[in-house]
Amino acid sequence: MNLTVYLSGEIHTDWRKRLKEGCEAHNLSITFTSAVTDHDASDAAGDVLGVESVSYWRDHKSAKVNAIRTKTLIESCDIAIVRFGDKYKQWNAAFDAGYCAALGTPYITLHNEDIIHPLKEVDGSAIAWATTPEQVIEILKYTLTKE
Amino acid sequence: MNLTVYLSGEIHTDWRKRLKEGCEAHNLSITFTSAVTDHDASDAAGDVLGVESVSYWRDHKSAKVNAIRTKTLIESCDIAIVRFGDKYKQWNAAFDAGYCAALGTPYITLHNEDIIHPLKEVDGSAIAWATTPEQVIEILKYTLTKE
Amino acid sequence: MNLTVYLSGEIHTDWRKRLKEGCEAHNLSITFTSAVTDHDASDAAGDVLGVESVSYWRDHKSAKVNAIRTKTLIESCDIAIVRFGDKYKQWNAAFDAGYCAALGTPYITLHNEDIIHPLKEVDGSAIAWATTPEQVIEILKYTLTKE
Amino acid sequence: MNLTVYLSGEIHTDWRKRLKEGCEAHNLSITFTSAVTDHDASDAAGDVLGVESVSYWRDHKSAKVNAIRTKTLIESCDIAIVRFGDKYKQWNAAFDAGYCAALGTPYITLHNEDIIHPLKEVDGSAIAWATTPEQVIEILKYTLTKE
Amino acid sequence: MNLTVYLSGEIHTDWRKRLKEGCEAHNLSITFTSAVTDHDASDAAGDVLGVESVSYWRDHKSAKVNAIRTKTLIESCDIAIVRFGDKYKQWNAAFDAGYCAALGTPYITLHNEDIIHPLKEVDGSAIAWATTPEQVIEILKYTLTKE
Amino acid sequence: MNLTVYLSGEIHTDWRKRLKEGCEAHNLSITFTSAVTDHDASDAAGDVLGVESVSYWRDHKSAKVNAIRTKTLIESCDIAIVRFGDKYKQWNAAFDAGYCAALGTPYITLHNEDIIHPLKEVDGSAIAWATTPEQVIEILKYTLTKE
Amino acid sequence: MNLTVYLSGEIHTDWRKRLKEGCEAHNLSITFTSAVTDHDASDAAGDVLGVESVSYWRDHKSAKVNAIRTKTLIESCDIAIVRFGDKYKQWNAAFDAGYCAALGTPYITLHNEDIIHPLKEVDGSAIAWATTPEQVIEILKYTLTKE
Amino acid sequence: MNLTVYLSGEIHTDWRKRLKEGCEAHNLSITFTSAVTDHDASDAAGDVLGVESVSYWRDHKSAKVNAIRTKTLIESCDIAIVRFGDKYKQWNAAFDAGYCAALGTPYITLHNEDIIHPLKEVDGSAIAWATTPEQVIEILKYTLTKE
Repeated sequence: MNLTVYLSGEIHTDWRKRLKEGCEAHNLSITFTSAVTDHDASDAAGDVLGVESVSYWRDHKSAKVNAIRTKTLIESCDIAIVRFGDKYKQWNAAFDAGYCAALGTPYITLHNEDIIHPLKEVDGSAIAWATTPEQVIEILKYTLTKE
Repeated sequence: MNLTVYLSGEIHTDWRKRLKEGCEAHNLSITFTSAVTDHDASDAAGDVLGVESVSYWRDHKSAKVNAIRTKTLIESCDIAIVRFGDKYKQWNAAFDAGYCAALGTPYITLHNEDIIHPLKEVDGSAIAWATTPEQVIEILKYTLTKE
Repeated sequence: MNLTVYLSGEIHTDWRKRLKEGCEAHNLSITFTSAVTDHDASDAAGDVLGVESVSYWRDHKSAKVNAIRTKTLIESCDIAIVRFGDKYKQWNAAFDAGYCAALGTPYITLHNEDIIHPLKEVDGSAIAWATTPEQVIEILKYTLTKE
Repeated sequence: MNLTVYLSGEIHTDWRKRLKEGCEAHNLSITFTSAVTDHDASDAAGDVLGVESVSYWRDHKSAKVNAIRTKTLIESCDIAIVRFGDKYKQWNAAFDAGYCAALGTPYITLHNEDIIHPLKEVDGSAIAWATTPEQVIEILKYTLTKE
Repeated sequence: MNLTVYLSGEIHTDWRKRLKEGCEAHNLSITFTSAVTDHDASDAAGDVLGVESVSYWRDHKSAKVNAIRTKTLIESCDIAIVRFGDKYKQWNAAFDAGYCAALGTPYITLHNEDIIHPLKEVDGSAIAWATTPEQVIEILKYTLTKE
Repeated sequence: MNLTVYLSGEIHTDWRKRLKEGCEAHNLSITFTSAVTDHDASDAAGDVLGVESVSYWRDHKSAKVNAIRTKTLIESCDIAIVRFGDKYKQWNAAFDAGYCAALGTPYITLHNEDIIHPLKEVDGSAIAWATTPEQVIEILKYTLTKE
Repeated sequence: MNLTVYLSGEIHTDWRKRLKEGCEAHNLSITFTSAVTDHDASDAAGDVLGVESVSYWRDHKSAKVNAIRTKTLIESCDIAIVRFGDKYKQWNAAFDAGYCAALGTPYITLHNEDIIHPLKEVDGSAIAWATTPEQVIEILKYTLTKE
Repeated sequence: MNLTVYLSGEIHTDWRKRLKEGCEAHNLSITFTSAVTDHDASDAAGDVLGVESVSYWRDHKSAKVNAIRTKTLIESCDIAIVRFGDKYKQWNAAFDAGYCAALGTPYITLHNEDIIHPLKEVDGSAIAWATTPEQVIEILKYTLTKE
């Protein structure tokens, strides 16, 4: 059994790295996918198509260029991990969770206890809620290796 | 032509009321649907199924009971209006937008200019972005009455 | 808002009657649907197509004739209530729950506490778990009438 | 031609082992998949996400963690074998059968004659009913090797 | 409960008439739909689009014009009755049965015993096999009126 | 039997009017739907959302506002009539035809003989090709009234 | 580019062999799939599950066991070739064509001119009609190798 | 990450070649697919099935034979590039864009500024608009290689 795991959300802490390294340490057969996490590159993704003077359209073009990747990867993943950090709005993470919910793709939310209440709808459709990458690693390990 | 319009997001201002009254003033053939917007009732939606001592599970049960309504209504709407206010995280609004995107249901975002950047992915999949309920009314009026 | 509610499972107690009467008392806009609950008629549903000497085929023909009704009604309901009683296997109720889960149709399980463990997979995909018809009535009332 | 075959249901007898060994003896090109069949591990699947004092929620969390695996595997199998033993309720097996039926995935039921009647709806949607693993092996062999 | 029932196949006997009259006699809430059964009109359905000198293309155009009706009606029916008579190939009836099977729409075959063997694949995917319109009436009556 | 018929394409001749009047003269039970055919209004559909200095974005916003209507109507029609005139590119008509083809919605093309060759892919997926509105009326009349 | 091609229908002439050999001679990258074409084995496919005294049920069981293979293969093919010979009813071939039509899978019919009229509905939904295996080979060669 | 990219539209300039060579120069993991671009071969694709005296039917047969390839490839691509040149109608390109839109497959349009207005509906559903193959290469490179 193999899994393709999409990593969505927060880009300011090292949770993706910890998750990947932990899974590698257990030799889990997982392909990790993700949006582009280089913030500046992501914001400039559409610039090659022509400079925009209105910031809304610059954002719009870049968001769509990034969606080529995210849409393709989300639609082909087996499970998504959706991370909400302490800072920033991270509406794109909640958007990805809703997208997964509509597709019937299971997702695990990863966030601290202090934001349980505002995330209750997102957690309500999740297959699990974790507070640390290590918990997610354990779940993936269980899913892939237990018989 | 009739439209069923789902209203998602912020519950602390009167945008739903303005939108409905404006459409009524034009005699537009619209059925408006929405999640329960009574905040306390929504938080307590699952209490009838038994009291929970752990707040996560109280939220979880209520979120799922509310989802009976929201899931049914979102899946049967023709278009959604997704409102992001100045306060609060409103991850459920972004979740609804992602849900619509995956279903292929068009949605209009309704928010101020100052949150264009964090909402760029949500706007990127939207059919339109408006800043006032009156603009949304105009679009619905155009859609329903122009020949 | 209207709801079509499919009632699945146990036929030996009066839970269907209590549920319908309770919803009527609140004037809820609900259409209730169900499999044929007359046990003998249900077992004999296929007999009109010719008598079978092997009981497996008699059951098979009747099960399929009954499926014309159940399949049509389950696929068109907004929500299902799946009841597990104290007696009998009620595999058909679990089958209906799985069918709903695959379709993405929300369902509420209705059963006592003493069978929580063997029903954990069925409950795990349910939108809610209730122990009395009165709780289900409250949830339907909340879903249909709260604004 | 290859087949991915999901094995659902009873975990207290050696039917999975007999089925796999029989197919291997015929060199059939089959990938067998299954839920975790270690009963204690399965019940504890969610414990890594935090200890629950209420047994319902412990079961709930574990059922969902297990569903990451079962949902992914059922949705990607070509055919399922659903086994009902003499003991226990095995509602999860009937749930899996209903899930397959809604997806249009063929499944073979595997059970003794004495439970034909309570399983008539589950058998009614099945592609075949077998009483021994050896019969299932023959069917898989026929499907894969006959020209 | 209402049903929309599509009548497919043989046009040379009065089975459609008997079926409709029998259902009317029981006041069953059924909408019957069907392909055009006027043979000459059906063959000429495409002639209005221009005369064809090659008979293949005349048939082709008419078959497609007829498909506007049959495709729309088959896709919106709840159940189909597929009749195979003693004469003619009636490949269109088998085609409709296959179409229903792929859509997951239940269908009842209606034919005599002497063609069981050549129809075994068509019957194998059917929800029931009847030999007389009266049997079909009984099944529809049971489905619609039994509680 | 009723039909919902979407009228796509050319807005510079009176084919929509002739088609509607012809169907009304035969009392056909048809609901006609269409994009907004007022050219200036259509081009300005997005202006209410704010003036754009770059013409690409003005067109973009208006095209999306118009898509609220066209997407909703195309997805709910039973059949589309796609008209290609002598002038203009009418790429939107070909776009609508491709959209219908992917949905499996039948469409009739309506165009003169001199553009058969460049339209061969669009005609190849069509259910019929007509050269006059009167032919389309005949086909709709046949579909709706012949028994 | 690779293609998976399902071969349906007549089993009494060598068209499958000619088709495969012709494609091999051109080194076309095709995987051919098919139902079991050994007539006696196909009729006996269900016998391993227990002997039936009623021929209808013997046929029924065998048809379903065969459907494990045919359903899986038809749903995964890129294109089907559906052959109608001079003899026999071959309703299963027409059934397969209808199944493909509903799935949107293109199919080529292969039959002589003298049965054009009774096959007009089957041909009407086909992507092409051929009279010889050699024509089919040419089409597959064109599809796979032309740039 | 790999991508399958379908190239649709104009066949009279070297944009396909520039696009492929540019992607190869960056070692991008892309499989390019396309309709047959040999104009004469494409027009004659159906001739092997018999000569037609009426040009409409010759075009019709060839269009359908070509659709075996294009339909299969469009439905399996991750993204399409749809090119509109200065000359010709290129309705097939707009048709492909509509087909992608209905499937939810992202596509990039590639055309000059002077046809922005007639292409506004096609651009309105596109994920991006480019004017040169080099821009498309940059977007594909970003999508595939940025982390």
